[in-house]
Amino acid sequence: MKIASAAVAALLFATTMNAAAQHKPEAVIHYRQSAMTLIGWNFGTLSAMVKGKLTWDAKEFALRSERIAQLAPQIQEGFAKGSDKGAETDAKADIWANPEDFQNKIADLVNASKALADVAKSSDEAKDKEEFKKLAGACKSCHDKYKAD
Amino acid sequence: MKIASAAVAALLFATTMNAAAQHKPEAVIHYRQSAMTLIGWNFGTLSAMVKGKLTWDAKEFALRSERIAQLAPQIQEGFAKGSDKGAETDAKADIWANPEDFQNKIADLVNASKALADVAKSSDEAKDKEEFKKLAGACKSCHDKYKAD
Repeated sequence: MKIASAAVAALLFATTMNAAAQHKPEAVIHYRQSAMTLIGWNFGTLSAMVKGKLTWDAKEFALRSERIAQLAPQIQEGFAKGSDKGAETDAKADIWANPEDFQNKIADLVNASKALADVAKSSDEAKDKEEFKKLAGACKSCHDKYKAD
Repeated sequence: MKIASAAVAALLFATTMNAAAQHKPEAVIHYRQSAMTLIGWNFGTLSAMVKGKLTWDAKEFALRSERIAQLAPQIQEGFAKGSDKGAETDAKADIWANPEDFQNKIADLVNASKALADVAKSSDEAKDKEEFKKLAGACKSCHDKYKAD
């Protein structure tokens, strides 16, 4: 089931308001960079398998897809209002100037990661690769627009 | 159900061998620090609620407990052999000198976080606090022995 972007955004905001109040901008930035590191760590293994640089391992592929699906919803609160500065960051100020568009991109990531994790449970290499490409596309679409080189 | 330490350790090793080969020590260290940051981020909110510094919010408590339960099994591969040095780290070399004891502590953390996440689904504040203390104990027990001040 595909979750509507607005619903995801509402959910994410609702679950992070309580905590958001207590974090300084530099802590938020550090948090989001850490979340991205964990996503990238798992994504790197998936990518290496898809490219044939690592032996295909369906169980490992499923595990790391599941981890990305768990991590994806966690990045939202890493972009809390006011965290555009406070520490070195690759996040462009455009994120906070276009909150709705950014929310949509986060929702796309959450949906793509969930779709991949679901497909990966069945150990179908061709389908895994197809969904992985969609996930990679969701990452790229947001990075191209909102991440400094 | 409590998972036996050895079983957890075996599982964790089994699922991380493929990926471990491709990471440099500094990347492993960065990964484990990122995982700890995410756990600490969520733990901080739980702790603030338990101490009454944040308004008690059972839904938020359950969400962050669940996230810690998802993250806890992810720290294991952050302590891969050879990652005792390569970047600044608070991890003591004793970790790699006492692999079995360290595995047991990781397993304790995984079990305590899972127990908390399970209890937190029922929104029973007293039980939540009780399980939270056990989780905090699992963190402390390992940090006291294996984390530099």
